[in-house]
Amino acid sequence: MFETLSTHRSFGGHQRLCRHDSAEIGLPMRFALFVPPEPRALLVFLAGLTCTEETFTMKAGAQRVAAELGLALLMPDTSPRGAQVPGEAAAWDFGVGAGFYLDATQPPWAQHWRMESYITQELLPLVRADLQLPADRVGISGHSMGGHGALTLALRHPQLFRSVSAFAPIAAPSRCAWGQKAFTGYLGRMQTDWAAHDASALMAQQARAPFPQGILIDQGLADQFLLDMQLQPEVFEAACKQAGQPLNLRWQAGYDHGYYFITSFIEDHLRHHAAQLTHE
Amino acid sequence: MFETLSTHRSFGGHQRLCRHDSAEIGLPMRFALFVPPEPRALLVFLAGLTCTEETFTMKAGAQRVAAELGLALLMPDTSPRGAQVPGEAAAWDFGVGAGFYLDATQPPWAQHWRMESYITQELLPLVRADLQLPADRVGISGHSMGGHGALTLALRHPQLFRSVSAFAPIAAPSRCAWGQKAFTGYLGRMQTDWAAHDASALMAQQARAPFPQGILIDQGLADQFLLDMQLQPEVFEAACKQAGQPLNLRWQAGYDHGYYFITSFIEDHLRHHAAQLTHE
Repeated sequence: MFETLSTHRSFGGHQRLCRHDSAEIGLPMRFALFVPPEPRALLVFLAGLTCTEETFTMKAGAQRVAAELGLALLMPDTSPRGAQVPGEAAAWDFGVGAGFYLDATQPPWAQHWRMESYITQELLPLVRADLQLPADRVGISGHSMGGHGALTLALRHPQLFRSVSAFAPIAAPSRCAWGQKAFTGYLGRMQTDWAAHDASALMAQQARAPFPQGILIDQGLADQFLLDMQLQPEVFEAACKQAGQPLNLRWQAGYDHGYYFITSFIEDHLRHHAAQLTHE
Repeated sequence: MFETLSTHRSFGGHQRLCRHDSAEIGLPMRFALFVPPEPRALLVFLAGLTCTEETFTMKAGAQRVAAELGLALLMPDTSPRGAQVPGEAAAWDFGVGAGFYLDATQPPWAQHWRMESYITQELLPLVRADLQLPADRVGISGHSMGGHGALTLALRHPQLFRSVSAFAPIAAPSRCAWGQKAFTGYLGRMQTDWAAHDASALMAQQARAPFPQGILIDQGLADQFLLDMQLQPEVFEAACKQAGQPLNLRWQAGYDHGYYFITSFIEDHLRHHAAQLTHE
């Protein structure tokens, strides 16, 4: 069960802000949900560092095409909030707002920081049941840390997600400063434990293409975090080649890491998912 | 001259945040500017109470169609900031964030609260010259307090604006609580001074239709401020009838006062303006 805190009519559908008591997280969690006039499929969109369930909801301009295509949009929060773990808000790239879409194994994070189980085992089934959508009509996308989340959750739970895309994902977290900090804190210092949550490492292990209809990634060439080596989509691209996974990695000249980039290309991503999810 | 604080590529154009020292306001002012790939006309969009130059910019999803139509978008702030007038931030509907797009005549507001002269005499000429756009290719729109601003500035300066539209405008401010508070504070207690800044009163005085190609207004029927009698578009509608002014007042069932309403219908407004501004 979940509670709807607010509803706004938009493009003939409804944009809702919701709240529920999460058993997996052990705390109340918020999520946003866009319900189109005629829901045919569900797209989970995972946001990036410092964002909330409202960031993509307010800034991406996704509702117009989602309404047209019959795509419901589910926007989870980016971490537990209110856990009162010491130091949880000390950094913008770890702790609150930075759950990295995995289940932490290390104290003091392991109790509440269970974003992978929360999304895949609790929130997704809850919303899919509420919308009465079949299990094979769910896709996943995300931005930056959420792009990491989309790629890793899709590869770790291929039975849950039939389509996947990402905007400027942290595509090789074991090799970048953000990922190393998060993985060390949440998973410990053993780098052998990191590969299971690294999109490029996961893809390199695939015996055959897990998403034969193709993965779509957009990456801005003026993205400061690309230049800072935090994203490294070329490592994921090489892993896809190795696994025979079709990948449409589009380099967008002049575009940066923010929502003005996302909104410029969100329509292509929504059509990518709808084509794979609602084509009979 | 103005300074560009940030630029983001979006839909093939550029979304800029700018700053300049305003002579009319006597303080630094910020504004946002979207420059499409091929600018053909300029639309000024005035935001509502509590908003800034970034609100419409981030939430309305206007850049996609603006880029397609060649509409540059100019988003001014909603009031002076940093004037340090006692009590300027004491209320959300008066003072900071609530300039009401007029020149105040009353102390202590008259020195800095000169939003009408700022926009019409300073900012608009500055931006139009920068974009090298002809004087007859400027339209104006706005939301709530900004809808009041769009209608009143268009009626007070018909030589500056060739097209006009509004979302949920405060259409008869002399008759509502927000308008009475603002007009009393900025213009004084003489209600005879208010009519010159009241869209319905201004329209009722017109000898003939000032915008013969028509005015577009969208109004949500689930808008709490409509129910609270703050907007009163029916008063403006009656004034348009009296003046012979064509008005397309669209009542949108289920829509409220917020940006999920605006984003649902912004495309129609942009096309309304482009048709009147760029049709040769």
